[in-house]
Amino acid sequence: MTSIRKFHNSDWSEIWTILEPEFQSGESYSFPVDISEQEAFRIWIEQPTVTFVAENGIGNISGTYYIKPNQPGQGSHVCNCGYVVAEYARGQGIASEMYRHSHQQAVSMGFRCMQYNMVVASNEGAVRLWKHHGFHIAGTLPEAFHHPKLGYVDAYVMYKKLVSDLLET
Amino acid sequence: MTSIRKFHNSDWSEIWTILEPEFQSGESYSFPVDISEQEAFRIWIEQPTVTFVAENGIGNISGTYYIKPNQPGQGSHVCNCGYVVAEYARGQGIASEMYRHSHQQAVSMGFRCMQYNMVVASNEGAVRLWKHHGFHIAGTLPEAFHHPKLGYVDAYVMYKKLVSDLLET
Repeated sequence: MTSIRKFHNSDWSEIWTILEPEFQSGESYSFPVDISEQEAFRIWIEQPTVTFVAENGIGNISGTYYIKPNQPGQGSHVCNCGYVVAEYARGQGIASEMYRHSHQQAVSMGFRCMQYNMVVASNEGAVRLWKHHGFHIAGTLPEAFHHPKLGYVDAYVMYKKLVSDLLET
Repeated sequence: MTSIRKFHNSDWSEIWTILEPEFQSGESYSFPVDISEQEAFRIWIEQPTVTFVAENGIGNISGTYYIKPNQPGQGSHVCNCGYVVAEYARGQGIASEMYRHSHQQAVSMGFRCMQYNMVVASNEGAVRLWKHHGFHIAGTLPEAFHHPKLGYVDAYVMYKKLVSDLLET
């Protein structure tokens, strides 16, 4: 059973053990593969508006996600999220649980849309997952991602409206 | 006659008189319309890799642009630029001159592609200009920009490869 709650500073060392191998692989997130722990903390914790953790039934952190405005000013009603699931906890639907939580959270924070800026095309599982959750490929960025094994590959901008026009006031 | 050169700190007060009305209008750039001078300096001068100014024949600054990687890590071969032309100098082709300079500059810095993340669809002149210079609309972001007069309008991700595959090594 997974529960999702806000990040506490005491979670960081456990989160870093989840983020570090993900970033080091260089296959899904566009961060330096040798990113420092300090820089990762800045990106995952300090810059976002809020960061959450997913905990399994015995209190271990199985995943984490952040939420923030994708742009300031006139674009700040569109949010951006990043999700990472711990290697040991993959295939259990935790990404979907975090996504559903982030959707509710985004709506409650007043966001109207969600945008992922760079979903690597070769990351087929992620593309399938986000489509399943209602995202569409808004655009293809040719050779925008330098994959460590595949070379230059396309990346997708994926996008979803969170609120229907009927709910607008 | 326009010449383009690197920004010097002594240019800032003149640049700010160009940027401030552009950002205040809220119609083209996704910055807070009440952005502070300090924050504008951070965005236009400190964060980019390099910033340039266009000077007219009598030494007045008629425009400015910056260049920076659009993403870190595996996306850092794609650059992002922002351009603003002084109100008094519009319609003279200065945006195109800055664009051509930025293209050469980007190639010389090793960038392979250029991406504009948010070209406001209602800004038809900009869309036409970038198409003229070889960009295509990679994607449409529905209602991603909150225009002060038009409400929620679409924005485009525009993209261009700077180097042809024949030049790859």
